Amino acid sequence: MRRLKLTIEYKGTRYSGWQRQENAVGIQNVLENALAYVLNEKVALIASGRTDMGVHAYAQIAHFDTCASMHTDRLPGAANSQLPPDIRVLACEEAPDNFSARFSVKSKTYLYKAYVSKISSPLRFETHWQILPPVDLEKMRRAAAHFVGEHDFTSFMSKGSTPLNGHTRRILAFDVRGAERDEIRFTVTGTGFLYNQVRVMVMAAVNAGQGKLDPDAVPRILESKDRGLVKELAPAKGLYLYKVEY
Amino acid sequence: MRRLKLTIEYKGTRYSGWQRQENAVGIQNVLENALAYVLNEKVALIASGRTDMGVHAYAQIAHFDTCASMHTDRLPGAANSQLPPDIRVLACEEAPDNFSARFSVKSKTYLYKAYVSKISSPLRFETHWQILPPVDLEKMRRAAAHFVGEHDFTSFMSKGSTPLNGHTRRILAFDVRGAERDEIRFTVTGTGFLYNQVRVMVMAAVNAGQGKLDPDAVPRILESKDRGLVKELAPAKGLYLYKVEY
Repeated sequence: MRRLKLTIEYKGTRYSGWQRQENAVGIQNVLENALAYVLNEKVALIASGRTDMGVHAYAQIAHFDTCASMHTDRLPGAANSQLPPDIRVLACEEAPDNFSARFSVKSKTYLYKAYVSKISSPLRFETHWQILPPVDLEKMRRAAAHFVGEHDFTSFMSKGSTPLNGHTRRILAFDVRGAERDEIRFTVTGTGFLYNQVRVMVMAAVNAGQGKLDPDAVPRILESKDRGLVKELAPAKGLYLYKVEY
Repeated sequence: MRRLKLTIEYKGTRYSGWQRQENAVGIQNVLENALAYVLNEKVALIASGRTDMGVHAYAQIAHFDTCASMHTDRLPGAANSQLPPDIRVLACEEAPDNFSARFSVKSKTYLYKAYVSKISSPLRFETHWQILPPVDLEKMRRAAAHFVGEHDFTSFMSKGSTPLNGHTRRILAFDVRGAERDEIRFTVTGTGFLYNQVRVMVMAAVNAGQGKLDPDAVPRILESKDRGLVKELAPAKGLYLYKVEY
């Protein structure tokens, strides 16, 4: 038995998310089927974490155990020949038995791509979030800076299952910068995230940029531990799982 | 009767090209139908030029004549409410009677987005051209530089209808530069282009970068006026009509 670690890129637009599902097509379903076909055995993937419907990945990481003898150099090409163009295995490596794509994660980086325009952009309608002008980049940065560090993020998550390890998480970096033309990129790195935490935090930063939220209210909202204060969620289509560190 | 000038962005993936067609859906069909609906009269668009199936536009320009009284500020929103998300009217202006989106063109700029990788990229499969490594940027630049100026481009076009104004065109700029990660961008500006000229020239530059063509053979190929020397065509999906100047 070997444990293999995969690096996977995908465009999430056509899928119901990473997670394998019975009545919808998850990216996991498609990948497991392709791997099972080329390795001639059942494959069960463990990913670094789920991604929501419509969320993309530059480099999702997953592992699986296999009895197959295929060389790691050959596996990406073999799997990719069975995959649709919006999913690709970029790399395959041998991993030690105690490696877990999920539990060995040291940090994860998410990237949000947005643009500021009154008119939605045909070239970016599946890949970027349209933000209405005017926005103040400095105010977004001030809001973002308040999230960095260890906090209880109860106020910045969606309701769902309560995680066993509580609501305290550590954000290592939250960068907001202008990109080409009318684009803004948000980059958030953390040791772990609550359900929808990135989408709620980025929404709060954008609200601050649009003057709907005082950027310096973020510490008070964190302290309040009140999920009702920031209700909205940035849309999935601008969000990318960018990097997972082990 | 007024003449209106439109600036249009589109993602060409789902369409058979700009051109109105009987048995396929051109971008022109969709736009003319949307404009006819909001203006309550038949609309016939004249564009700066056709774009091929799968080619995108940051800013296609088209004009049409109308008896409708709708204000230019209101037209984009009204039209966009009737358009699919991959086509948007970005701007509308009054134009003089002697303005022609087609015949008044001073120059056009095309952008080619490519990336260098052995594995195709899910996030870019509809929007970029995958080039296999290794490539030499300097050789691509050398080939590109030979196209700048006034030349007979018979060797660098696809067969098709012979243009009335001959095969001589003026290329004002042909820029090749590295972009983020593994990306390369080709930007070509000319006063006019022959059928598929941009796609054949960019293909030649990439062949030079991959060592399949001596970059300094370009002047000889131009002089030969032989369409058979550069047979391939860069794919449509990485090509964007970027800017039209009047």
